[in-house]
Amino acid sequence: MPKKIFFTPGPSALYFTVEEHLKQASRAQVMEINHRSSQAEGYYAEAVNNLKDLMDIPDDYQVFFLSSATEIWERQLQNLVIEKSFHYCMGAFSNRFYDFAVKWGLKPEKSESTFGELPDTNPNLIPKDTELITIALNETSTGVSFPQEDIYNIRKSHPDTLIAVDGVSALPVLDLDFTQVDSVYFSVQKCFGLPAGLGVWIVSPRAIKKAAEKLALGHSIGSYQALPNLLKNGLKLQTTFTANVLNIFLLAKVSRDMLEKGIDVIRRESDYKAALLNHLVENHPKLEHFVSDRKLRSRMITVANTTGDSSKILESLAQKGFVLGNGYGAYKNKQIRIASFPTHSKEQMELLVDVINATI
Amino acid sequence: MPKKIFFTPGPSALYFTVEEHLKQASRAQVMEINHRSSQAEGYYAEAVNNLKDLMDIPDDYQVFFLSSATEIWERQLQNLVIEKSFHYCMGAFSNRFYDFAVKWGLKPEKSESTFGELPDTNPNLIPKDTELITIALNETSTGVSFPQEDIYNIRKSHPDTLIAVDGVSALPVLDLDFTQVDSVYFSVQKCFGLPAGLGVWIVSPRAIKKAAEKLALGHSIGSYQALPNLLKNGLKLQTTFTANVLNIFLLAKVSRDMLEKGIDVIRRESDYKAALLNHLVENHPKLEHFVSDRKLRSRMITVANTTGDSSKILESLAQKGFVLGNGYGAYKNKQIRIASFPTHSKEQMELLVDVINATI
Repeated sequence: MPKKIFFTPGPSALYFTVEEHLKQASRAQVMEINHRSSQAEGYYAEAVNNLKDLMDIPDDYQVFFLSSATEIWERQLQNLVIEKSFHYCMGAFSNRFYDFAVKWGLKPEKSESTFGELPDTNPNLIPKDTELITIALNETSTGVSFPQEDIYNIRKSHPDTLIAVDGVSALPVLDLDFTQVDSVYFSVQKCFGLPAGLGVWIVSPRAIKKAAEKLALGHSIGSYQALPNLLKNGLKLQTTFTANVLNIFLLAKVSRDMLEKGIDVIRRESDYKAALLNHLVENHPKLEHFVSDRKLRSRMITVANTTGDSSKILESLAQKGFVLGNGYGAYKNKQIRIASFPTHSKEQMELLVDVINATI
Repeated sequence: MPKKIFFTPGPSALYFTVEEHLKQASRAQVMEINHRSSQAEGYYAEAVNNLKDLMDIPDDYQVFFLSSATEIWERQLQNLVIEKSFHYCMGAFSNRFYDFAVKWGLKPEKSESTFGELPDTNPNLIPKDTELITIALNETSTGVSFPQEDIYNIRKSHPDTLIAVDGVSALPVLDLDFTQVDSVYFSVQKCFGLPAGLGVWIVSPRAIKKAAEKLALGHSIGSYQALPNLLKNGLKLQTTFTANVLNIFLLAKVSRDMLEKGIDVIRRESDYKAALLNHLVENHPKLEHFVSDRKLRSRMITVANTTGDSSKILESLAQKGFVLGNGYGAYKNKQIRIASFPTHSKEQMELLVDVINATI
């Protein structure tokens, strides 16, 4: 059976070089080596350096490897908040971060939008004593992007508050100014095209300082994923637990491939593919943009309302070898979601548009 | 370059069928499918059912997939302890669980041994109001096994206290009576011969009840890895986060292979290989058992003091293609540690013994 092409918004298609890297991993016995061996440390260093180059991460920021972006939501609350966080809630994933804060017994506040729209980003809504502001660059459930100028505006009005940015399904394609934020995280099964099972957490010196302060005040910041412990291990190029070394290896290799291709090329291609999908949805009689404000539409996740049951459309497309995402949560069977990640070539996207036009 | 054989105590050699299963995973696009798809749910069910068959886990126990055994230490404290845990500390890993409890702000107590020995297992040492007793079946850093009759004895004298068992580098080879314990966990990169990046947590109905009680009393039990949430997702054959689906797939396949081989055969082979290693260490002029009490010696991890720097011995063996473990922590360069896991064949172990005899 020929392989299917996954345009799902994560997990998604593997980056097109992953199969080759898996063979190399097997030859180099990456799945058998000790996670504290110099060989594993080499992959750690390679992954960190490539990510720093690719996304222009400041030298004094640290890059840590955890198990998932979901875990990193929790670790941020554990390390960076004593009492008050503030969350921009604009879909299933950004809302879940707020829910985590409630479950941890914190006193979170939020600015919330209906799905498909942007919450009120007026910085005056954020209480002065907020310790952490959380923002999703790209809400994967709705396809809404949070404008970067709004992030920098929030920073200006709250210069002493930590800002956390969910980069899932946005990085490395969006060009984020890391110097204006303190905690950036993503899992690797979206834009990086890797198997699931690894979360990347990038933190500023201010974030590490905040964790130390919380601890010094007598609060628990957890155990092995406490930032001082992540730092201690990270400086040795090691994880705090027996991590998914295979995925760190693959991340090192795929980020190298992306550097060789050139991040500018990846970004230009992303614009082109997003324009194709935008044109498709705007002109197709049975599709309609969920995100009505054109400026807020994600370039990585296109979400369209469908006339009729979307699961039938998805099934027809799957039979032709094209796997797309269904609507999320309450929008299941009412929408389709299409990922446009770096692994998806311009030609694949043109083909997908043709197939959709021929199918529905 | 010919591949090396890893006899390291984890990560270790891949189970000998893993390479084939990886090819199948690639063909079935296991690394691209959604973790909530019916395909992924099928692997979840297969892994759970095979593990239950393999280790005779009671029907009403739940099997959950997390990121590592290290994470599961923390999740047990978070879900199962309000104030008081009791820990048998007999090496780096069992001690670390106690340290986690301190860092979480609990009031843990312990019974501790010097490395290479067993702590005092007299159940009267355990305070009556203890909520969780933690025991490592096999302390990977020292090669000491905790006698199972002592576990059952503790159960008898503390029938209402939850007992947690670290099965890392012990299961499925040791034949544990799951009905006498409440929380059993392991990571897959040791006896199961899989790449690192998955932790398995098996819990009794009593453990799930305890988490609900802790929550009802107004304590936080965390967010996505709270037992009620693990249960809610587990009943749907789903993980609570975008987990390492590849590893769940591989675990399903390898546990099937082990069932086909037969757990009795695996256990008999383990006895034979342990006897070989025991004979080697007892008779080699430059090696000496670290665990002096023969009854306490692990069948899966043999630890030997070396005459002279062990790192030189390890280097000579590695040059011949045999990778063994160094001593842990303070015993680095003073000991060798040899894993004997199900993937290691009798013939490989005989060869290793010959090579060690010819090398040092």
